[in-house]
Amino acid sequence: MIVQQKLNSFININREKIQQALTHHLQQLDIPDQLKDSMIYSAEAGGKRLRPILLMASFHAYSNDDSKVLSLAVALELIHTYSLIHDDLPAMDDDNVRRGLPTNHIKFDEATAILAGDALLTFSFELIARDSHLTDEQKAQLTRLLAEASGPKGMVAGQILDMEAERKAVTLEELETIHTLKTGELFRFAIRSGAYLGGATREQIAHLDKFAHFLGLIFQVQDDILDVTGDAEKIGKPIGSDEVNEKNTYVKLLGVDGAVEKKEYYVNRAKKELSGANADASYLTALVDYFSKRDH
Amino acid sequence: MIVQQKLNSFININREKIQQALTHHLQQLDIPDQLKDSMIYSAEAGGKRLRPILLMASFHAYSNDDSKVLSLAVALELIHTYSLIHDDLPAMDDDNVRRGLPTNHIKFDEATAILAGDALLTFSFELIARDSHLTDEQKAQLTRLLAEASGPKGMVAGQILDMEAERKAVTLEELETIHTLKTGELFRFAIRSGAYLGGATREQIAHLDKFAHFLGLIFQVQDDILDVTGDAEKIGKPIGSDEVNEKNTYVKLLGVDGAVEKKEYYVNRAKKELSGANADASYLTALVDYFSKRDH
Repeated sequence: MIVQQKLNSFININREKIQQALTHHLQQLDIPDQLKDSMIYSAEAGGKRLRPILLMASFHAYSNDDSKVLSLAVALELIHTYSLIHDDLPAMDDDNVRRGLPTNHIKFDEATAILAGDALLTFSFELIARDSHLTDEQKAQLTRLLAEASGPKGMVAGQILDMEAERKAVTLEELETIHTLKTGELFRFAIRSGAYLGGATREQIAHLDKFAHFLGLIFQVQDDILDVTGDAEKIGKPIGSDEVNEKNTYVKLLGVDGAVEKKEYYVNRAKKELSGANADASYLTALVDYFSKRDH
Repeated sequence: MIVQQKLNSFININREKIQQALTHHLQQLDIPDQLKDSMIYSAEAGGKRLRPILLMASFHAYSNDDSKVLSLAVALELIHTYSLIHDDLPAMDDDNVRRGLPTNHIKFDEATAILAGDALLTFSFELIARDSHLTDEQKAQLTRLLAEASGPKGMVAGQILDMEAERKAVTLEELETIHTLKTGELFRFAIRSGAYLGGATREQIAHLDKFAHFLGLIFQVQDDILDVTGDAEKIGKPIGSDEVNEKNTYVKLLGVDGAVEKKEYYVNRAKKELSGANADASYLTALVDYFSKRDH
């Protein structure tokens, strides 16, 4: 078992590596200032870099030399960044603040925010296609997986369903489908692609696939719990905002105790799958607890 | 020389093929109805399918058996479709009608239009990555070229510059840069990737690259000329709307006669490059005249 302290150091080191690679890739773009500034603004606006960290942790369960996955980790983070920019738009969630900073369309303007999102999304695929650490087979495979995870079958489907769900009551099952698509698919990509490049077997990847599913749900239950029991300053939004916004949450459907119980169930299922993937001695195990106990 | 009649038949046959392949790829998506409907709505809303036609004409200059390029042609058309959906949004050009039909955000809503655009863009890369007619090397190469042509270095840069130019006077050189990025880069992708898959040599592709540049400019000059001398019903918008909207056009900068002269110059340059690419007996030659003389 890797203790939490060692995980923290893994997270800090890799967050720094990802940050540097991300800045490098965006800074070298020779494109109009307004577009470049707005892409960089949102990409560098902090964030926990959970998805690239997951990708690197999954890779580390099977291999070392993570220079091989760094560009892919950046591509994944840029897909996440684009989705936040478009999500915050007036026609979508209409958010003015994210991570304590003005959202992209407030800092720049709406047209720029739409185009910065489009640009980041497209540039992610360019990064993979240009990555000299990957074979052509890996590029084709990863492009397909990332497009499936983030496109109409994955994240974008989750966003449409989430919007529709705002206007009606949903069942726990429907709620899980939304979260699985909206958040879980990118987690799943992170974990699968890291293991794939690390040389995991098909069977191991199949276990990790299930692991990723539960990890995504743990992330979401904890989000819902924090909205009720968390510290407003740490989570960066007022306590109880989900109820005010009439959001469908685990807490709303199960109560706080029920949500905590559900989370524990997912934690156990997740760890069991890690064991099946021979990855129970990896950072992924510590990440389950990190996801489950995070306070922001 | 291929006569115009033969070109028309080539265009009609391939437009039909593209339409069928496009419908096939979108219909088989198992995704939320609202998302699927809005993607299909815009993708099937007519259009001249110029980009996929160019791709197929370029392929045909070097090879036959176009089943090899059909999915790629669809991916290219879907990129074009996404760009139109986002371009029409209230924060961008704020257009309510396109090709005689309500634009996507009018037919559905703004959030759906944003997501349908994101989905089409992402799905284009999925189509290439999944295309069983392509080798992994071709997939990686085409993904890179398409992302460069449509992303922050290409089309999206053109859209940002176009927005900025609306607020100021531009020189002829700046106008050409905008058009080259906004429209020309996808034309260039069509022509390069068609020739690449058809087996053209590097030298031939270099000539076609220049050809594509001039073809994009011919397209744009003719657009500007039609806005003044065209038939409102055929072009689908009122005559003189560029002047009303204070758009920077070739006609504004050079007058109608000057614009026509410029176009003839580009036509000659384009044909010279085709000759260098050993493609002067292909449909591409006839397409130059088609672009130059089109009335809508």
